[in-house]
Amino acid sequence: LPSTKSLVDGVLHGDRRAIAKAITVIENDLMEAQRLISMLYAHTGKAHIIGVTGPGGAGKSTLIGKIANELRRRGKTLGVVAVDPTSPFSGGAFLGDRIRMQDLSTDEGVFIRSMAIRNNPGGLARATKDAIRILDASGKDVILIETVGAGQSEVDVAKIAQTIVVVLAPDFGDEIQAIKAGLMEIGDIFVINKADRQNANRAVTAIEAMLELSSKGPSWKPFVIKTMALRGEGVLQLLNKIKEHREYLTEDKSHSRQRRIIEAELTEAIKRKTVDKFLESMRKSGRLDSIVTKILAREINPFTAAERIVSEQLKRLESEGN
Amino acid sequence: LPSTKSLVDGVLHGDRRAIAKAITVIENDLMEAQRLISMLYAHTGKAHIIGVTGPGGAGKSTLIGKIANELRRRGKTLGVVAVDPTSPFSGGAFLGDRIRMQDLSTDEGVFIRSMAIRNNPGGLARATKDAIRILDASGKDVILIETVGAGQSEVDVAKIAQTIVVVLAPDFGDEIQAIKAGLMEIGDIFVINKADRQNANRAVTAIEAMLELSSKGPSWKPFVIKTMALRGEGVLQLLNKIKEHREYLTEDKSHSRQRRIIEAELTEAIKRKTVDKFLESMRKSGRLDSIVTKILAREINPFTAAERIVSEQLKRLESEGN
Repeated sequence: LPSTKSLVDGVLHGDRRAIAKAITVIENDLMEAQRLISMLYAHTGKAHIIGVTGPGGAGKSTLIGKIANELRRRGKTLGVVAVDPTSPFSGGAFLGDRIRMQDLSTDEGVFIRSMAIRNNPGGLARATKDAIRILDASGKDVILIETVGAGQSEVDVAKIAQTIVVVLAPDFGDEIQAIKAGLMEIGDIFVINKADRQNANRAVTAIEAMLELSSKGPSWKPFVIKTMALRGEGVLQLLNKIKEHREYLTEDKSHSRQRRIIEAELTEAIKRKTVDKFLESMRKSGRLDSIVTKILAREINPFTAAERIVSEQLKRLESEGN
Repeated sequence: LPSTKSLVDGVLHGDRRAIAKAITVIENDLMEAQRLISMLYAHTGKAHIIGVTGPGGAGKSTLIGKIANELRRRGKTLGVVAVDPTSPFSGGAFLGDRIRMQDLSTDEGVFIRSMAIRNNPGGLARATKDAIRILDASGKDVILIETVGAGQSEVDVAKIAQTIVVVLAPDFGDEIQAIKAGLMEIGDIFVINKADRQNANRAVTAIEAMLELSSKGPSWKPFVIKTMALRGEGVLQLLNKIKEHREYLTEDKSHSRQRRIIEAELTEAIKRKTVDKFLESMRKSGRLDSIVTKILAREINPFTAAERIVSEQLKRLESEGN
């Protein structure tokens, strides 16, 4: 399609309107999203993708603001993708927070976008991944993703990142939430923000002890840092650690992190393609409806039904010469 | 397996220990989960499954506590499944909240369970769905699911319910979060809790106006109720509305809600089966690894790769006679 072609050209030239348009496209149209990302994919893989996750109120947005300001000072271009609906980047926060982000939102070298579930038929993780690909292809040096670390889809989103920063306030509730949400397993760098509060040192010790227990072998050793994001304290140290992690990833000749991300992406795409083919064929033949009726009557259970359908459909698709 | 058999018997007799054990099994072992649920499935479909969702701090747990107390007074047996890691039912809340739940947790007619991401390899929505099936098969009259309405997986969990109650505080932030999380589309009943607060009437009007805009046709018309859960006010009215919705579902001869839930479940099971077969075969042949290497080098994009793999694997599986 000529319009997709010109959109791709615009994105590759870093044109803001084209980037915004492209993200809207991938948010609303699953088929067009695949076409667009297929065309852009060869131009991705250059940006450093940093996930920032943690409970609400830990100070993720403020920290991202400070990181962004410092990276801009160093001449880097940035993309910021907010998946948290309550983030000031999404417009869903207090006025004071939004004002603090204003210098970023008027900066030509920064592209800010928030993602919401309702716009994304194929899933929030899928749309966020595609938005990151677009920003990557557009030439942004660093892409920051903000997710509230509360649910599984948020953890899925965080896993897209090459470097995952988990931000917690020195609060026992935050630690519990991080553990329950599975954040301890995915973090490369842990930040105890609001470090002027009581219990900050206790929190650092507790996190370090937990990381010790779940040690993932000799490769990268997760690190705990204290920050006071509002005053900018600890931000330079955090950036050094992020850079260190980036270097670690580059030096890892087995590309294990990248391979894991790609494998997850590939599996997801396979899943989608297969199910699309299956369901299309099943809907056409009326098979889906009749099975649902049987399950409704408890004549069969969904697992046995799925088992039979999969074998059946594999044969049908094959005999149709697909 | 004899142990699965005796577990199934225990669940069907409503034995607390068997129920607890069964949920632990479905949380930790995907294969065993399928076996267990297949055996229990014919005994499900009797409970009324009510989802209670909304932003953190809206008062979901308190409201569930009051609903549960009233239903117990009416002689109903209950299951409560908390998916929110900060819920008092999950033990992740303030002491005061936990104490309020204590009379429920010592009641033999109530089974309370919290679910966390980290324990659930196959996904939180899948595990929650299976836990509900177990409670349903065990003979519980009503099952309440508490989810924080923040991310996609939470919305997925809520969709398992037959009746979905969206709880909001009269706070503009809550409304924004509900809209962004897609809760307006899935709610059957909307509760403005903490109705003694300023803006409660404004919130009711705003929600009603939004529901007017997104009217889903002549079937069930979502309803907005004010409650003060802490004092128990509005709880009876809410229970009446919940009962009304239950009757609406029963009278709907096309079983559209039930069919939608089953179709989603079936699709999910098909997805899992298919991908399992594909990936197993691809891993064995070394095909997955070589494709990942090509994607890493940007020689091919994941979508085109997935397309080719799906056609290829369909042929391979077929020729193996599966």
